[in-house]
Amino acid sequence: MAERSQVVVVGGGFGGLACARALARANVDITLIDRQNHHLFQPLLYQVAMAGLAPSEIAAPIRSVVRKQANIRVLLGEVTNIDLAAHTVSYEPAGAPLHYDYLVLAPGARTHYFGHDEWELYAPGLKSIDDAVEIRRRVLLAFETAEREPDPEKRAQLLSFVVIGGGPTGVEVAGAIAELSRFALGRDFRVARPSESRVLLIEAGPRVLAGFDPALSEKAVLQLAELGVHVRTGTFVEGITAHGVRLRTGELLRADTIVWAAGVASSPLIAALNVNVDRQGRAMVDSDCSLPGHSEAFVIGDAACFVDKRGNTLPGVSPTAMQMGRYVAHVISDEVGNPTPPARTAFQYVDKGSMATIGRSRAIAQVQDLHLSGFLAWLAWLAVHIWYLIGFRNRLLVLFDWAWSYLTYRRGARLITGGRLHAGPPVSQAPGVGTGAKGARQGALGVRAAPR
Amino acid sequence: MAERSQVVVVGGGFGGLACARALARANVDITLIDRQNHHLFQPLLYQVAMAGLAPSEIAAPIRSVVRKQANIRVLLGEVTNIDLAAHTVSYEPAGAPLHYDYLVLAPGARTHYFGHDEWELYAPGLKSIDDAVEIRRRVLLAFETAEREPDPEKRAQLLSFVVIGGGPTGVEVAGAIAELSRFALGRDFRVARPSESRVLLIEAGPRVLAGFDPALSEKAVLQLAELGVHVRTGTFVEGITAHGVRLRTGELLRADTIVWAAGVASSPLIAALNVNVDRQGRAMVDSDCSLPGHSEAFVIGDAACFVDKRGNTLPGVSPTAMQMGRYVAHVISDEVGNPTPPARTAFQYVDKGSMATIGRSRAIAQVQDLHLSGFLAWLAWLAVHIWYLIGFRNRLLVLFDWAWSYLTYRRGARLITGGRLHAGPPVSQAPGVGTGAKGARQGALGVRAAPR
Repeated sequence: MAERSQVVVVGGGFGGLACARALARANVDITLIDRQNHHLFQPLLYQVAMAGLAPSEIAAPIRSVVRKQANIRVLLGEVTNIDLAAHTVSYEPAGAPLHYDYLVLAPGARTHYFGHDEWELYAPGLKSIDDAVEIRRRVLLAFETAEREPDPEKRAQLLSFVVIGGGPTGVEVAGAIAELSRFALGRDFRVARPSESRVLLIEAGPRVLAGFDPALSEKAVLQLAELGVHVRTGTFVEGITAHGVRLRTGELLRADTIVWAAGVASSPLIAALNVNVDRQGRAMVDSDCSLPGHSEAFVIGDAACFVDKRGNTLPGVSPTAMQMGRYVAHVISDEVGNPTPPARTAFQYVDKGSMATIGRSRAIAQVQDLHLSGFLAWLAWLAVHIWYLIGFRNRLLVLFDWAWSYLTYRRGARLITGGRLHAGPPVSQAPGVGTGAKGARQGALGVRAAPR
Repeated sequence: MAERSQVVVVGGGFGGLACARALARANVDITLIDRQNHHLFQPLLYQVAMAGLAPSEIAAPIRSVVRKQANIRVLLGEVTNIDLAAHTVSYEPAGAPLHYDYLVLAPGARTHYFGHDEWELYAPGLKSIDDAVEIRRRVLLAFETAEREPDPEKRAQLLSFVVIGGGPTGVEVAGAIAELSRFALGRDFRVARPSESRVLLIEAGPRVLAGFDPALSEKAVLQLAELGVHVRTGTFVEGITAHGVRLRTGELLRADTIVWAAGVASSPLIAALNVNVDRQGRAMVDSDCSLPGHSEAFVIGDAACFVDKRGNTLPGVSPTAMQMGRYVAHVISDEVGNPTPPARTAFQYVDKGSMATIGRSRAIAQVQDLHLSGFLAWLAWLAVHIWYLIGFRNRLLVLFDWAWSYLTYRRGARLITGGRLHAGPPVSQAPGVGTGAKGARQGALGVRAAPR
């Protein structure tokens, strides 16, 4: 076994998994380590938060995904240290450090509060299954508490929702909350009425979905308005409490339920490497995705800052991560066991377009010069997302669930679990909840928020 | 509105829900209060614990179930006090006490440790979605931890599972763990092997499934043995720690994962009523399911001890609860607005038979004199359980999931959520986890365990 090259892949998101799978025929032993046992289809995570899908419909055990690949070993563990000089990766629960010949770092991004970590308690982010279940709990409990509340003013406060950050995630969440409150409140509740509900989407930049063409941003705002979402751009957050958001202007937006979709930063693993990083903490990588001076150590996906020939930074979306993963796998395959390996050619990103969904049958999509909005864009969005869902079973289940929701407006996964019966944030919270370092897609398409 | 009778139903399990629905045409206003927002199909809860089904596949929001019924209001809240003299029900989060003309108490049962509440930390029971997700987490983490463990002896300890209690729940859980470890370990794991896994089912009484015919109990033991489950009867538990079970004989059964399926007791709401109760804390009810001296206050389902004409106590299973619920609804319907109400006829339980499943294509069933075991019994079990699952959508989804698991042996819901990466019980635990007072079915078909 000693002559086989050892590849350690950190992170089982889109990038890490794509790399590991593309190495199936290479003469290497792969160890894939992740602190979750499941690969998460993050683009649909907001659907779990909004009770449209069950967690298991958008997540698959990493072991199952790679079960047929003989040269891979999956470890559940949290990487605690990477020694670039010694070529070792340490992890917890304590095991012998992993030695590598090639290292592929794909730890993803985490929610970032711009130095205001105390906001997390009141405005959870959306990066992991646990985050999504927590947001689902809060939204559903807000409805339930409003149903018990005789005072219309308090009811309005309970039924007010603020989403911070106008990137794809923020737009999706705001649209989905509006739909959920309109239909669920209209049918299942007796006291709380849809007309009492209010959804506000705030964005620090001049427009939402800044990564898209300005005309599409405008169409998205119109579609959000149809659902009853109020969009406020150029709006900076200065404080967040259990009962609302304070703006830089001094205005207070009263709301018991707040979702943070404004900021992401790279995994803390990158900061610990002592390499050059960009403003978001992503590692600056060479044209072959490797760290400068460490041609055997690659960083891919949301944790990497890749600047292309035209000086653009690649967006932190799943296609970037997957393309990088497959590229790195090819580089490694070409080199192992090859006494005269070819020179590495630079990674080339192929932009296949981007899309954002706004609600049931509403979306925008942009593929090169083709711009779509409305129902057609939504169909395209649906097709792409179901197609890319890992695993045949999940695809069918999700399709079934969606067809069902579409026809009936019912939400199948409307469960409140975890015990508390009060709306709003818990009094105390376990440390670290919601700061998951794993995951692939971030709302990096131009999402901005109050820089303080 | 004052002339309409007020009915308060406590608990949205099988009994409470059946009663509320059967009152749809009665001239009453119903308030159904539950501390969970969902009705739980408890007979399939073990499938969630064993990663076969997702929580939302066996639970439905109570509001959705009764959405079309105009005379019902659903409240999410925990009942804190019942004043039988004043006819009021108080609940939290604080609201005005509910006044009732008729009270239907259906709070269900909870896990009971025979005075050893400290065992809960090491051997969780299986009564709520949160319980099931916790057991799922422990079982899956045991596999993951074993995969990282180089020492075969420690691996064997990690892959040893003890299920305490040989009633239907214990048998189902033990069979499902054995199946899960055989197939999941055989396919997805590289280091941990199925041959290292051991599942032990212990029962204090002389045989498992004591509610069934002795010949069927024996067949169940044979079917369990085929799956690799060792059954030990006449075995009394004296202590439980993080690493095993100590028996009364002094023997120590080493296992890191322990499930408690041995004892249930009635909800604490019943104890607070100051009425006559049986050994399990269930309220002794009259032949019309009402509390002696309180003809307007009924107790149904697992919280009631109903002794029939032949002196038998009715079993704590969902058919009992549903039949009681519908019976009480008829009594109330006959009386409201009727100046000369008919005398109440006694509740008559119709035994439709009972069944227990042991694993994929293994079960036993007993309907009057008809005794089945093996594949045919399993088909009958499957048909009955899917048929009774609340909600068309869930039925289809579950059928789909099962067909998929059956054909592929894969488990769709194999997610570890909640953050910790160590196997075994958490170091500290929120108080009250696993002591849910809600739910309908208990393993009361003759389940016994160490009485101390």
